[in-house]
Amino acid sequence: MNKKGLAILLRSKMRPLSPVSKKVNQLQHAPLERNVSATQNVSIKTERDFGQVRESMHSVISMNKKEILDTALNEFSEGYFSLSKENRCKLLLILAREYDLNRSKVRDLMKQYVGLEIPNGDEIDEHGREMDSHLSAFYRIERNLRHALKPMYEVLFERLNTHPGGLKFLASVRADILSIIADENVASIRALDSYLKEKLITWLSPANLELHQITWDDPASLLEKIVAYEAVHPISNLIDLKRRLGLGRRCFGYIHPSIPGEPLIFIEVALMKNIACTIQEVLWHDPPTPECEATTALFYSISSTQPGLAGVNLGKFLIKRVIYLVKKDMPNIHNFATLSPIPGFMQWLLSKLASSERSGPIFCENILKPEEERALLDAYKDSTTGESGMEVLLHLLTSTNHEWTRSDRLITVFEPILLRLCARYLVLEKKRGKALDSVANFHLQNGAMIGRLNWMADRSEKGLSQSGGIMVNYIYSLEHIEDYAQAYFSTGHIQASPDVHHHIQSPERNEDPIN
Amino acid sequence: MNKKGLAILLRSKMRPLSPVSKKVNQLQHAPLERNVSATQNVSIKTERDFGQVRESMHSVISMNKKEILDTALNEFSEGYFSLSKENRCKLLLILAREYDLNRSKVRDLMKQYVGLEIPNGDEIDEHGREMDSHLSAFYRIERNLRHALKPMYEVLFERLNTHPGGLKFLASVRADILSIIADENVASIRALDSYLKEKLITWLSPANLELHQITWDDPASLLEKIVAYEAVHPISNLIDLKRRLGLGRRCFGYIHPSIPGEPLIFIEVALMKNIACTIQEVLWHDPPTPECEATTALFYSISSTQPGLAGVNLGKFLIKRVIYLVKKDMPNIHNFATLSPIPGFMQWLLSKLASSERSGPIFCENILKPEEERALLDAYKDSTTGESGMEVLLHLLTSTNHEWTRSDRLITVFEPILLRLCARYLVLEKKRGKALDSVANFHLQNGAMIGRLNWMADRSEKGLSQSGGIMVNYIYSLEHIEDYAQAYFSTGHIQASPDVHHHIQSPERNEDPIN
Repeated sequence: MNKKGLAILLRSKMRPLSPVSKKVNQLQHAPLERNVSATQNVSIKTERDFGQVRESMHSVISMNKKEILDTALNEFSEGYFSLSKENRCKLLLILAREYDLNRSKVRDLMKQYVGLEIPNGDEIDEHGREMDSHLSAFYRIERNLRHALKPMYEVLFERLNTHPGGLKFLASVRADILSIIADENVASIRALDSYLKEKLITWLSPANLELHQITWDDPASLLEKIVAYEAVHPISNLIDLKRRLGLGRRCFGYIHPSIPGEPLIFIEVALMKNIACTIQEVLWHDPPTPECEATTALFYSISSTQPGLAGVNLGKFLIKRVIYLVKKDMPNIHNFATLSPIPGFMQWLLSKLASSERSGPIFCENILKPEEERALLDAYKDSTTGESGMEVLLHLLTSTNHEWTRSDRLITVFEPILLRLCARYLVLEKKRGKALDSVANFHLQNGAMIGRLNWMADRSEKGLSQSGGIMVNYIYSLEHIEDYAQAYFSTGHIQASPDVHHHIQSPERNEDPIN
Repeated sequence: MNKKGLAILLRSKMRPLSPVSKKVNQLQHAPLERNVSATQNVSIKTERDFGQVRESMHSVISMNKKEILDTALNEFSEGYFSLSKENRCKLLLILAREYDLNRSKVRDLMKQYVGLEIPNGDEIDEHGREMDSHLSAFYRIERNLRHALKPMYEVLFERLNTHPGGLKFLASVRADILSIIADENVASIRALDSYLKEKLITWLSPANLELHQITWDDPASLLEKIVAYEAVHPISNLIDLKRRLGLGRRCFGYIHPSIPGEPLIFIEVALMKNIACTIQEVLWHDPPTPECEATTALFYSISSTQPGLAGVNLGKFLIKRVIYLVKKDMPNIHNFATLSPIPGFMQWLLSKLASSERSGPIFCENILKPEEERALLDAYKDSTTGESGMEVLLHLLTSTNHEWTRSDRLITVFEPILLRLCARYLVLEKKRGKALDSVANFHLQNGAMIGRLNWMADRSEKGLSQSGGIMVNYIYSLEHIEDYAQAYFSTGHIQASPDVHHHIQSPERNEDPIN
């Protein structure tokens, strides 16, 4: 290919291979999943007979362990993928109910156990050895009980885990399970999910994962996955991808030996002089800071590739290992921070504003300060008489194409208001004692603090819709990571910089009461 | 270095770094272990205060999970290694007894459980959804019980597993536990062992292991491990090592991501035209068969490097994957066989012979046929009058330096007798329904058959002491692996070739009654 041809190729727009939606909905993209998958040898497109798939599931579970299982396992996973959404759901219900544990066996063991006398502590100290044999009856029944409390479907999970391609298949099955639970709360499916999730957490322990630095030298089949799964800032073309893997940038992924060539989660890092305020300067920073001058590692994107691994916190370990690695490699780097989206801010704000419209000004909290209200009404001349500040804000924020971003005047008026509300949303709004925002919760539980809010940091359609263009830097301060994580974990305390607290208080604290 | 210098270096005798004894006795070589270990950062040589180590163990278990654990884990493992054998034993007893499970909590949950009504099957079919919510009480208590049945020491194991170097440390701890059990049967230590073993089996599932072909291009630090741990046929010098990794040879190991640069188990393979009859032709086969002419892959050595992983069957998966890999790479290879030692034969035979000496000819089984008895007495002129054949055999077999192997006459007389007894030992002698010989049991449970006995196949001191120099070929016949494994597993049936059965029957069946 000549130079011009190459230039065109590098610039041509990339279409991700599979749509990555925030909401887990694996059932719908299963056919695509199949095409992407390199490990799953699935070629059949038409749905198989339900009874036949059910039969193959039964064989996998009940077969004696020394027989040839591989064929049965392949047959089952191929059959499963061929099923419609309804039939998969039906099959998983059968699995959860008919391959559960044997409750009468559990009860028998319990009866034996309750009949045993617990030796008391004093005796143990004096006649250690003698007591020991007394305890062996306990040990025996406890071991048997542990086994009896394993549902029969554990065999299926275990066998799939050691079967080539099986772990990835299990992740797809879990995505289906999550999608069923999202639709309907079925106790047996929830029990199935919680069991599978615990298994996945064990199997995907960081001890089993390889940290791989992803570079332009990696196979195209792996890079393709990065393009497909980059969920935060979509990769637009090959130049964009190459830049993210090139000078002044790093990309690291966790790879499991049994899902080779496909990171389960990956993180993109920019090496910079300062903590960036806008995503534009990260994505289009050209030329990059010379690496020897960098003092900051900015984590600007973290994406997981398997919706079925929701709740298996791989990101926490990944961030810690990457910090450790970068620090070891480049001792000059001493700031570790993110430039993160605030995915829930607008949704929260709009629902607050809308509830005022519905329930009227008396019954709802006015989230605006008087001076903010005034500034909004002043700025928006089109407002009907009697419209409140909250109504004006709702109206403007929901206007098509984010028109407010085209008016410098509105932008100036909005800036302090949205920054204050955003700081409130991040620092004060909680659900079950944890930050309401999912990304905030993720970084806070890892031990980060909320460092700085950045106005107009992401002007993309997605950025404006999610958070009015605001982005936030979470700071990983090495000396404090453990303390902050501990405080957040035990009391729900959210660590934020004075800068962020200032947004919440200002401007009325210093306001002149006469004005 | 000049050519001559290199030649001397390559030929100089290698001394394995740590003695590898068959009997697991980790406690004694812990200090050596420490020097070999690359991952364990242990430098303290003097024993630490017992109370202090016990305290650090307590911190690791009881610390809140978000605090800094790494320091505590390092302190504990360093402290543990510094302890004497007695103190380690004491500490493990404390771990087993004081960090056990909470039995009254288990009982409380049981009481709740027994109080629940089991919904009967019919109802489930008719009102699936309704029953489902009825079951949720069961699911809840079952989940709680699973957790309550986990001993407190599980936390220690789990934390060590995800800590760098922790898995290797746990393998050392298990070796110590096995050594305690070998000395004394303590129920609580046995319970500790069985729990740790199950954990290790989960963590070391083949899905987490990487199959690595070990070559001369591998780091010296890895090759050093091969030399140190080759337990079957010690590697004598660098030329020997290089040959085992060179043309016509293969060496594969399983590596766990958290114990890098050190295979947990490795297998050595020779590519040959025929199934070898002696180990000499494998180890000193020069020049090797051109690889394109090879039709046989001969597994001549399999060694595991961690005594603490006894009972975690990694070898089975390793052999299967190696067969698969070799077959894929070299389609001309269609024989897969071992040339294996028979480690228990002499021990078994000598104890049979000795029991005759002790209890006299009337109360013990005469394991010799009349014609064998005669042949022995004829051949051994030094025998005292009245000495039986068994006594003569015992006498000769236990003579210093295996003198019998220097008499052609004795060798000729011994050959049919020892081959017959060896076939009987391998095929008929069992313990709990399994082959008495440990290596036989290993290959039989993997689905191999006993193919051929080879006379004077290993004339080394070790070979003569273990099995009178006899070696055996176990054959892995791809079509039958699963069937044979299944038969052995369920009925204890040992598959052997007609050749081997012939040894058991001959020669008396065709014997002339007059002679």
